[in-house]
This record gives sequence, structure tokens and C-alpha cells, in this order.
Amino acid sequence: MKFKILLFAFILSGYNFMFSQSQSQNLNLMPYPDNLELNSGKFRISEQFSAKLNQQGRRAQKAADRFLSRLAKRTGLFIEDPFSEINLDETSSNFNISYQKEGLIKLNEDESYYIKINTESIHLEAVTDIGVIRGFETLLQLLSSDEEGYFFPEVVINDSPRFPWRGLLIDACRHFMPIDVIKRNLDGMAAVKMNTLHWHLSEDQGFRVESKTFPKLHELGSDGLYYTHEQVKEILNYASDRGIRVIPEFDVPGHATAILAAYPELGSAPGPYEIERDWGIFDPTLNPILDTTYIFLDKLFGEMSELFPDEYFHIGGDENNGKQWDSNEEIQEFMKKMNFSDNHAMQGYFNNQLLKILTKYDKKMVGWDEIFHSSMPNNIVIQSWRGKEALIEAAKKGYQAILSNGYYIDLIQPTDFHYLNDPLEAEVDLDESEKNLILGGEATMWSEMISTETIDSRIWPRTAAIAERLWSPQNIKDVEDMYRRLENISFQLEEHGLTHIKNYEMMLRRLTNNKDTEALENLISVIEPVKIYNRYRLRKQTQQTPLSRVVDAATADAKDAREFRNIVDEFLSEKKVDNKKVQQIKSYLALWKNNHFQLKKVIENSPILKEIELMSENLTNLSQVGLDILEITLGERTVTESWQKESLDIINKAKEPVAQTELMIVSAIEKLLNSIK
Amino acid sequence: MKFKILLFAFILSGYNFMFSQSQSQNLNLMPYPDNLELNSGKFRISEQFSAKLNQQGRRAQKAADRFLSRLAKRTGLFIEDPFSEINLDETSSNFNISYQKEGLIKLNEDESYYIKINTESIHLEAVTDIGVIRGFETLLQLLSSDEEGYFFPEVVINDSPRFPWRGLLIDACRHFMPIDVIKRNLDGMAAVKMNTLHWHLSEDQGFRVESKTFPKLHELGSDGLYYTHEQVKEILNYASDRGIRVIPEFDVPGHATAILAAYPELGSAPGPYEIERDWGIFDPTLNPILDTTYIFLDKLFGEMSELFPDEYFHIGGDENNGKQWDSNEEIQEFMKKMNFSDNHAMQGYFNNQLLKILTKYDKKMVGWDEIFHSSMPNNIVIQSWRGKEALIEAAKKGYQAILSNGYYIDLIQPTDFHYLNDPLEAEVDLDESEKNLILGGEATMWSEMISTETIDSRIWPRTAAIAERLWSPQNIKDVEDMYRRLENISFQLEEHGLTHIKNYEMMLRRLTNNKDTEALENLISVIEPVKIYNRYRLRKQTQQTPLSRVVDAATADAKDAREFRNIVDEFLSEKKVDNKKVQQIKSYLALWKNNHFQLKKVIENSPILKEIELMSENLTNLSQVGLDILEITLGERTVTESWQKESLDIINKAKEPVAQTELMIVSAIEKLLNSIK
Repeated sequence: MKFKILLFAFILSGYNFMFSQSQSQNLNLMPYPDNLELNSGKFRISEQFSAKLNQQGRRAQKAADRFLSRLAKRTGLFIEDPFSEINLDETSSNFNISYQKEGLIKLNEDESYYIKINTESIHLEAVTDIGVIRGFETLLQLLSSDEEGYFFPEVVINDSPRFPWRGLLIDACRHFMPIDVIKRNLDGMAAVKMNTLHWHLSEDQGFRVESKTFPKLHELGSDGLYYTHEQVKEILNYASDRGIRVIPEFDVPGHATAILAAYPELGSAPGPYEIERDWGIFDPTLNPILDTTYIFLDKLFGEMSELFPDEYFHIGGDENNGKQWDSNEEIQEFMKKMNFSDNHAMQGYFNNQLLKILTKYDKKMVGWDEIFHSSMPNNIVIQSWRGKEALIEAAKKGYQAILSNGYYIDLIQPTDFHYLNDPLEAEVDLDESEKNLILGGEATMWSEMISTETIDSRIWPRTAAIAERLWSPQNIKDVEDMYRRLENISFQLEEHGLTHIKNYEMMLRRLTNNKDTEALENLISVIEPVKIYNRYRLRKQTQQTPLSRVVDAATADAKDAREFRNIVDEFLSEKKVDNKKVQQIKSYLALWKNNHFQLKKVIENSPILKEIELMSENLTNLSQVGLDILEITLGERTVTESWQKESLDIINKAKEPVAQTELMIVSAIEKLLNSIK
Repeated sequence: MKFKILLFAFILSGYNFMFSQSQSQNLNLMPYPDNLELNSGKFRISEQFSAKLNQQGRRAQKAADRFLSRLAKRTGLFIEDPFSEINLDETSSNFNISYQKEGLIKLNEDESYYIKINTESIHLEAVTDIGVIRGFETLLQLLSSDEEGYFFPEVVINDSPRFPWRGLLIDACRHFMPIDVIKRNLDGMAAVKMNTLHWHLSEDQGFRVESKTFPKLHELGSDGLYYTHEQVKEILNYASDRGIRVIPEFDVPGHATAILAAYPELGSAPGPYEIERDWGIFDPTLNPILDTTYIFLDKLFGEMSELFPDEYFHIGGDENNGKQWDSNEEIQEFMKKMNFSDNHAMQGYFNNQLLKILTKYDKKMVGWDEIFHSSMPNNIVIQSWRGKEALIEAAKKGYQAILSNGYYIDLIQPTDFHYLNDPLEAEVDLDESEKNLILGGEATMWSEMISTETIDSRIWPRTAAIAERLWSPQNIKDVEDMYRRLENISFQLEEHGLTHIKNYEMMLRRLTNNKDTEALENLISVIEPVKIYNRYRLRKQTQQTPLSRVVDAATADAKDAREFRNIVDEFLSEKKVDNKKVQQIKSYLALWKNNHFQLKKVIENSPILKEIELMSENLTNLSQVGLDILEITLGERTVTESWQKESLDIINKAKEPVAQTELMIVSAIEKLLNSIK
């Protein structure tokens, strides 16, 4: 990369400049505030910087101390007064923080804040301490420097979120995620003003919370990998300190193999059951006609309702394939007796029982699309993984709803795809009260293909763009400007211990057996893991297979590929051949063409890389095609039939996934080829 | 660095080659085994690799599963049988593991193991499962590859440790270290066969364990940063799974400010007391003449003795400055009455009371040098921070003793300094039974100047060399070969989540505000933090000042500087001018000379770097002096008086610390200068 950084510095800076005068006024804020006025003054930060709060309050004080500590860490300043203070006499300090009341960790709590910075002082004001916390993050994103030192620019900001439910689902079941992973991601969420952690805790592959009422659940259903009550409380406190709600999900009646490994008698088939190691949709399903099932769920949900204080409680409800119900005669009889036409109706009955239980514990039920059934009252919340139509339909029927379709970050789609996915398009056919039922959205970090080493690189930085979609005004949607800001946010997120950048480098060292990583980086910068569920289709994986290969180091938005596609698009959109663009395209292609020679030597030293040798060859060949096309464009070469055939073969071959990754510059080369036809 | 890697590849490979035929037979083992026979065969690893144990046993099975998982991660192999199995019918598998009994997590437990690898199979045998765990680490260090794939070389290894106490002290008080930090370091310890975590838990700056008998200790003495009992147990289990003992330290009667912040009535002066934020030796000391002090310690040590099962218990006992005792009239009267001639005698009385308490709880007392007093029986263990003479004196008087002097890794001394520090020199004046009293040693990670971000880079990789000193035969002490192996071990340690390499890169990104880090890396590769306690002397720091500056990114053993010094030494040791060496030296000097131009631009963009601008200039000037000397050596230039004066000025200036770091090539330039005199 180093070489390329030098080589293409001019390209990148060109890009930055192009978009710097856009909506974001060249500030690196994300999510971008609702209302911002930028002026030219600077508030300079010195070692005498101090923060004063208008009142006592544990959460705000801790947040202010964290703010000061982060500011010190970034600037290296030995701030003389490293703890925030309570400003009893209300004299003006250089950083004055005030709020009216402690916020509740609750849906629809006020998160708005106001910042006014001039050369003399900073004022941060909010209704709640949660608003103050949101404001701290904006301030840290505003931190700037010039030759004189660090400063905050002169701004006035009035900011509040567009949607009240801005969530991240973390699946701690497919692969267990220890609490330090959860904590650093809560910090990441707070940094981009997300307010809801959806903690997926029960699955075919694991039941991940200690249960004091049913200890066999964690003893037999988790391989010893579960959260104790004390750890759950630690996470709840950590989240609360950052103004983040935590919604637990216990997925029933399907996705329940781990529960049935502990309590097979609750299954719709005799069992025995073992923790599932594979990925997919499985048969084991709770028996919906047993009293014992509901007694079990009543006690379990009672215990968990007490442990998790949020008023919402997620019961999953998705992907019950119905096989065990179909082949269980008693269930079939019951359904006949009850006049249930299908399994969906049977599940509606099941969900209604759950609703009674949850209502008893003062909880509101949340579930996936499948819980949406005519028999259910509309005081439940539908989380839509199927699509926006389902979301809109739910709202029309009076249900509250949150969108996850389009935010499945496990599927390795590009950031702009998620970014432009609006839960509430301007032209949507809903009236105002229906629109208010759309609470927001949730990015979903399903964990089949991730480990503790790679989870951060799947969540970040893409989730920051989703956070912006859910917080910022609808009209903030300039993709290139988003990418510009995203790069900066991504780097800043590292201060929370997030590993999305540093584990990439570590994985490259491991992959090359600690040899020079440059050639491998050049390749990974233009490949991405295959999308959607293709990785599993191409090669079966289980809970135990290693996640340390090239496909795991690769990420969405392969950077060089994206930049290359952009340049090619611009080049092709111009009527006259732009020689500077030709040179830029050539530089990339020459680098890639020659990369295989270096990479081959690295591969010889590292058998784990053997599988991507073909990909590296494809890149070389494809780059040669690209170089040929440029020569043709410039009239330095003529098109022959054999060249055309060969080129098409190379392009087609390069479209095939290799080692579960795909080459992201093929479309650009294809466009170039089409341009000379 | 990338540029340099290319430029100097030939130098490095030259070095590797020079030492490759040394004691270690070119294997990357550390600690190096007691007895090893290397043959030419290869046991090839495929997806059908499987591990079979000769008996049930939770610890060995979990360790075998971890072994398989790490092997899969490194090789990328989808091992079909990812869990170890119990070989009931004793048929031969491709990896057979057997041991006789479960080891006790106890001093002097058997840790020996035997490995025999041929082309067909691997046998790992041990007396205890702890020996098996040690053997797994050796195996993973043996993993090799060629063009055909991964293999283990054909070896026979008989291995056991030289010393039974091979420890690492982690100070969780000056800066709190959350349990994920402790866990990853336990993994690092296990990787180099260390077996004792000395957990420093009580200090002036914090009391770090929940106390159920005296909750004010953690409530008022920790800023909320402490380990719960559940977390302690989690660490104890984690350590036990890796064959590691955990010795808690509760430092009394000095270093006790945090205790007195909670219970001021136990102090030797009236108080009130506040958690100390500064570093050094402070006055607050427990009152040794109050019954309540001993009632308190009895209950507290009772609680902690139950929590920590190891038979050893550390009571600190160091650095009581005696000021509070001197000025407390009642204590003075008591001392007179008891005929105590000095505070050391008073502390002897105090320690004897503690000894009674600990004996009641079946604990053996460990303390720092200061607890060594004629009034103490010799069933206590002395940990020597003062020096080897104290260690030997203790052994002569019949005390068991462990060495920490020379292993103070917080003082940023080079690895070879620690490596060559032998607790039991061959020529030591002790008889065999006295020698047996020297139990081993402990690296001490005091945490005044480290944070969770930097702790790993202070511990690793240097502690691996200390681990080798304490495990391997005395005659394994080739420094260059140690450095060669250390680099490989350092990289392998990353698989445990240790951050010594990746946080370095992250800190560089932060320091440069996410710009090109190369010029800064070039500088940091030749500077080190000032040694011993000079950092604090140069600039006061407290618990809250940031540890994110260049001095924190810099580490011991600045790599380029060490290599440069080696080349210069070799160059100067030869009678005839070696032109190849001249070129090597020139390449370094030219790089450094020109580095300032690039770095200046980075500094302009990043005020936190401003403080090292002078260091960068010094490097440039010093490199010019070096280049001049080479020209003089080659007869291309003559020495003038003014040049000589100027050069001396530059060298003297470069000796001054800048931003609490020092330039590590000055001595080499000085040698070059002297060579032309």
C-alpha cells in the first residue's frame, strides 16, 4: 500500500477536493447534524482546558471524564484538570455543559443537544444527559488542528435524531462474543449515536445467558460460552452509561436447538438434541401444544425480564420450517381442533401465549416478520428482515415496525447500498400517524462467518453509515461524501479498541507468515468476500472451521477497486479522452499486472495463501486486458478477433469466485471493453 | 518501513544466516527445550489431522481443543474433526497425547513433557496434563511449511523447566487492567511456558478487588475500577486451564493509601486520605500498633485466602518510608517499650503478626526484600527487587527466594539485559541445598507509565526472553540467536489478541492523524523511551495524563538502531575497510538524513508530534556526521577542526532526551568518530 499511497496521492486528494464543498462542509461529522452553522473562528485547546457541568449526575460526569480522557489521548495534552467538575456558582468556564434532567434508557427519550462554540468558550446544552453524551461525540468529531495546535471550529449546532430506534444486532450465538467485544462495539455505537443493542442470545448453535431457573440451558446449551448475570449487568451498565438500550432476543419456537439440547422434552419431536454446529434453518422447534412449554417460557422470560430492564423483549419467531409440527400427530390434531389452517396460524397461537406472558412482565413483544399474523394484536413490534413492503404493510395495520432488511451487514454488501436504504422514503404511501409507527432500523451482525477477530471489520465502518441514515435528515445522502467522512470515522473508531483496522494487518501478517504484506494487500484491496449467502454455498463451514483465511481479511468496499471503478466511470463519461485519467487508470493496471510476481513468492512461503493464487493470476490477466484497451483507445493498437475472444475469456474467468472471494474490478474492465466496441 | 524492508532485506537475511546454525538449530522455539534431536523427516498436516487423548480430563481436553483451533487458524485447514477425542481402545492415531495424572496448580508440580514426531505420527507424553499443555506450545512453535504445505519436523524432545517459579507481575493498581488484558497476557505467558501470575492488587493508587467483608475498599478505593469475585474466579479458571498459578499481592503496611481512603482509622496519621494520583513513595502507612489493624487484616486476608487458592500469598512490605511512624508518638512509645531499634524492626513485628494470620489460613508468606528481617522465621519467601546479593543472602539464611531485580520490564531496558540476568549464575557461592532455595524469577510490569493500550508492548516480546532464562538450560544464551527467535515469537503471540504490534500501528495512525506513517516509523525505529525512572523525572505524570505520545509508541530494542549498532561494531572490528558494510551503513544514514523532510510535513499536520521535531533534526544532523566520517574513512574527505567541533556538538546534543525519548544510534556514531581519531 505504501507505494500506492505515494503513487496515487494525487488521485485521492483530487477526490477529496471534488467533494469537499458538498453538504458536509468538509467537516468529518457522522452522523451529520440536523442543523449546523460553521464560522471561521477557533476555540484553541490548551492544558488549561476544563469541563464544568451544571449539576451532579453520575452518567454525565462519567461521560465528561471520558470525553476529557479521549481529548487528552488524541492531543497528547497533559490536561491539568483531568476530571470534570460541577459548576456550583455557575461562573462561566471554557467548556460549560448543562442539561435539565437525567434521561431514561428508554425508547423515545430526548437525545437532542445544542452546541455553540466561539473563540472563547464552548457551550453544550441538552434536555437530558443522554443528549449531552451525543453532543460529546459531535465535539470529538469536530476536533481539528493547524500549525498552532488543536482547536474546535466555531459552530452552532442544533441536532436531534430522525428515528428513535437506531440499533445494532449482535448475534452472540453462532460464534460467542465475549463481553469485551460487546463493550468496544457499544463504544462504537455511541460514537455514531446509535441507541439500541439487540443482543441475539439464543439459537440453534448456543444459549448464551446463564439461567438461574433453568441452569441446564447454559450448562448443556453453550459449550461453556455464555454470559453470567453479573456480566449481563456489566454490559447493561456500560450501555446505559452511553445512552444505549439493550433488547435481549430469545428466539422461539424455531432456532431452538440449544434449548432442546438442555430440555429435549419441550421439543416437537422426541430428540435427543445436540447443539447445532452447522449453519442454516433446522427442524428443532418448541412444542406449541404442551403446557410445560409455556410454564418453561413463563419462568425463563420472567427471569430474563428481570435481568433486562428495557420495556421491549424480542422473541425471534423467525424461520420455523414447520417440519417437526407437520410430523407430530398430536400437534396436527390440535391444529385441526383449533381450526388452524397452517403452521403460521399455529405459531400465531404460540405467539399469543407468549404475549400474555410478556404482558404480565410489563414487556412489549418484538419479533421478526413472521410474528405478524392476523391473530396478533397490534401492540407488538415487527422487525422486518423480509423487506420494506412488509414494513409498510405492518405500519398500515397499526403495528410499530423497525427495518433490518437492507441492513444485513453480514452479507458483505457495499456501504452505499445500506446507506441509501431509507426506512421511510419520501414518497412512501403512509399517512403521518402511520409514518410515526416506523421506529427506525437495525443493522444485523449475524455471526456464522465471523469470529472475535473479524466481527469489528464486518460491523465497522459500514454501520456508521447506517447510523447516519437513521439519525440524520433524509436529504443527507451524497455517497461520495459519505465515503470520505467514513474513512475518517473508521480511523477514529480505533480509539475504542475496535479492531477493524488493526486485525486486518494482524491477519495479513499471519497469512504471510510475518513476511512483507504489500503484494497481498494490493490483491485484497480489489477483492471482496462473495456476497449474500454464497460463501456457505461455495464451501460448507461449521462453527469450528477457521476464519483466518484471505476471505476473512477481505472486507466490503474493497478500496482500490471502488476508486478504480469511479475513475473508469468518469473517464467513460467524458466525451474527449482525458489523458490524466488514462494515466491514473494505467497506474492501477500496471501495479496489478505486476503484483502477481511478488505475491507468488509470498504464496510459496505460506500454504494458506495457495487458494488465492488463481485470483492473483486473474488480476494480472485482467489488468493486461485493461492496458490493451487503453492502447486501443489511444489508437496505439488495433483490435483483433483473437484478442477479443481471449479478452472475453479472461473477463469471464475473472467473474468466477476464487477462495470465496470475488474480484471487484471486472465490471470496470467490462465497461472499458464495451466502450471500444 | 516498507521502503527499508526492501532496501535492507539483504542485511537482515545476512544476519539470519549468520546465526542460523547456532544452538537453536534454526528452529523458532522459545524457551528452547532442554533436550532436542532434529531429524530430516516431516509429519504433514492435512484436514484429517486428529488428536486423541489417553484419558478423560477437562483441562487436557480443553487444551487439546485450543491446540486444534490454533492449528486450524494458522493453516486455514478445515480440520474435519475439530474436537479432541478420548482414545478408549488405545489404537494409534496420528496425534497421540498421553499423561498419567491431572497436575496440581501448585509450585513444583511436574511440567516435563516428551515429544516424538516422525513422518507417520506425533506422540506427546507427560506426567501431568500441565506437561501436555507445555508440549502443545512447543508443537505450535514447531509448525513449519514448504511448497507442499504445513508440517511438523521430525524431532525428539525431552523437556522440563530449570526453575519452578517463572512469573509475571501485573500491576493492576497504578492503571487498572480489565480482565481481557489479564486473559490475553495469561495466554502469552502460557505460550512461553511461564507458570505464575503475580497480581498486584492493592496500592496507593487503587484497591482493585471487590471485598465482601470490607466493601468500602473497592467502593472508595478504586474509582469503580476493580475485579469482582466472579471475575477473579474467571481469571483463576483461565489461568488454571493454562497451568498457571495466581499469587495475589496486597501491599502493606506502606503503599496503602487506597486502603486508608476507605478506612482512615487504620492509618498511622489521622487522615483523611484520598486515592493517590501521583507516582512515587508516599507516607500513608497502616498503624502497626492497633489491634483493629490486625483484625482488619485477619478478616481481609481470610476473605482473600479463600478467593485465591494458591498456597502463596504476597503481602508486599516494600518501601515503607516510615514518616508516619516517626511522627506518631504512640508508635514511637510502643517501639521503645518493645525495644525496637528502628522502623525495620517495627515492620518485622508487623510482618510476624501477618505471618500468624496467613499461617492460620494455610498460606505461605511472600514479600519484597524488606520483609527479610532477623525476627522473621525462614518459612517465608523473599522476592528480591534490590539485587542478586540480597537474593543470595536470603538463600544462605535458608529463605526461599525469587529474583525480580533485573527483570523490571517497566524500565524499558533491552531484552538482552534481562536475558543474560541469571538468578543462579554458574559461579554462585551457594551449596546445592541453598541453590534449591532459589525458586526462579518474575518479570515485573509496574503500570505507572502504561495503559491498556501499551501494556502488551512493554511485556512482549521481552518477557519471552525472561521466560527462556527461567525455563531453558543455563548455557542457552546466544543473544543474537535469541533476538532472531524473539521476532518470530513476538509475531506468533498476536494470535492471543496481544496488541504489542497492532497497537503500535494504531498509535502511529493516531499520532499522524491517519496520514502516512512511514517517516514517523523511521524515527521511532531508532528511538526508545528514556530508561529507568527518567521519564518521570523529565516530566511529572499522574494517573490521568495521556499515554498516547511518541514515547508510548516507542519500545525497548529500537530495531533499526540495534541493527545499525551491530553493523557498525562489525565494521569497526574488521582490519580492512569492508565496502559492503560501508554501503549498509550509508544506506541507513542516507535514509535517516532525508527522513526529516517527510516527517516535518507530518508534524505540521499533527500538533501532538511537535515535541519530537528536535529529535528528528538531531537524527538528520547525526546522520550527516556519520556520512562525513565514512567519507573520511574512505579518504574522500579530510578532517577539519571546525568539522570536529561541530560534530562533537551534534553528538552531544543528540545525547539529550527529547520528549522523554532517546536516540539509540548516538553511541555507534561516537564509535565511528573515535575510529578516525
